[in-house]
Amino acid sequence: MNSDMLIRITRYYRALNRLRAIGLEKVFAHNLSDAAGVSAAVVRKDFSLLSIHGQKRGGYEIVDLIEKLSAILGKGDPQNVIVVGCGRIGKALMHYSGFEPDGIRVVAGFDTDPVVYSDVSHPVPVYPLSRLEEVIEALGVRVAIITVPESSAADTAEKLIDAGIKGILNFSPITLKAKPASEGGSQCVIHNINIALELEQIFYQLQFPDTMK
Amino acid sequence: MNSDMLIRITRYYRALNRLRAIGLEKVFAHNLSDAAGVSAAVVRKDFSLLSIHGQKRGGYEIVDLIEKLSAILGKGDPQNVIVVGCGRIGKALMHYSGFEPDGIRVVAGFDTDPVVYSDVSHPVPVYPLSRLEEVIEALGVRVAIITVPESSAADTAEKLIDAGIKGILNFSPITLKAKPASEGGSQCVIHNINIALELEQIFYQLQFPDTMK
Repeated sequence: MNSDMLIRITRYYRALNRLRAIGLEKVFAHNLSDAAGVSAAVVRKDFSLLSIHGQKRGGYEIVDLIEKLSAILGKGDPQNVIVVGCGRIGKALMHYSGFEPDGIRVVAGFDTDPVVYSDVSHPVPVYPLSRLEEVIEALGVRVAIITVPESSAADTAEKLIDAGIKGILNFSPITLKAKPASEGGSQCVIHNINIALELEQIFYQLQFPDTMK
Repeated sequence: MNSDMLIRITRYYRALNRLRAIGLEKVFAHNLSDAAGVSAAVVRKDFSLLSIHGQKRGGYEIVDLIEKLSAILGKGDPQNVIVVGCGRIGKALMHYSGFEPDGIRVVAGFDTDPVVYSDVSHPVPVYPLSRLEEVIEALGVRVAIITVPESSAADTAEKLIDAGIKGILNFSPITLKAKPASEGGSQCVIHNINIALELEQIFYQLQFPDTMK
């Protein structure tokens, strides 16, 4: 499966959970095509590649589809994450309700500032960064979100990988890359969300609409 | 210019501003290649495509490069944005310092909750959503960030477009698409940042490392 197909499948999965939540039992390819931003033909093709077949009269049972996509996406295990850097964005993510429908849960935060980690009003426990390795091992967490300032992002990523983290979502404005195994790096999946860069691209596209492919 | 090249150019531009800030005057292709995550050969090729040439002894003057890339990226005009939805993520973005090096400025916030827009402690003025059109016109803003709950995201986008917004960065978990002109849509560039979806993809890649291209 390539990454475009994976994105579509996770979108179908999200949409299905929402449709079930509002009481629907059956879904058609064009319902899912709206959610994933593709044509109904692509939805049918994806399902056919995954050996998922509709009913004779058309349409799919939502519960059935959720179960099948869930197996494909490797759901079932809890999808626990930690947040490293509990400034405004980190705090917003600790409180974020948009993770729940996907079974993602923020289980702990980390910060270097005693004022922050001594504060007990956070929705999840916040620990000093020095306890990273111990807490990661105790909680069995494999994925971390980095929301530290730009100047400490690279250092934080290194600490996380040393402590056993295998996946990182980086919000700091520098682009983090996984070190290849040939350079002594241990395997880690890194995704970067660069908010300023996204805005830059929008401004650019407005300025020069004809130059974009 | 395709979008990959645009992303590289904005990365070069960011890196150059940071290098200048720490007092450097000259830069080499391999300095920029680190920042953009490409090889030095790609940097040289990009610059050559843009008719930017280095000095005889190698390297480029940073001030000179910034000026040239600035013109290419259409900088100069203030890059003002508004934040619609002043919950935790919206507030974090109003306070976000990562926009400054790129010349991006959040100039106003909007919310439907009187408690939120009557609060004067925000770093920028926050207005009731009903004043959207008036304020957008007065400030001459063209780009908006959507940080409202999922249930009102589509409606908010429509209001923004009706009020003259031409570019949207959407943080809500539903994927917003620009309506094509053939369906009566006015042109609007929409980028979606789906935090849960990024995490889902990381979990998937950890589960099935061999299935990703």
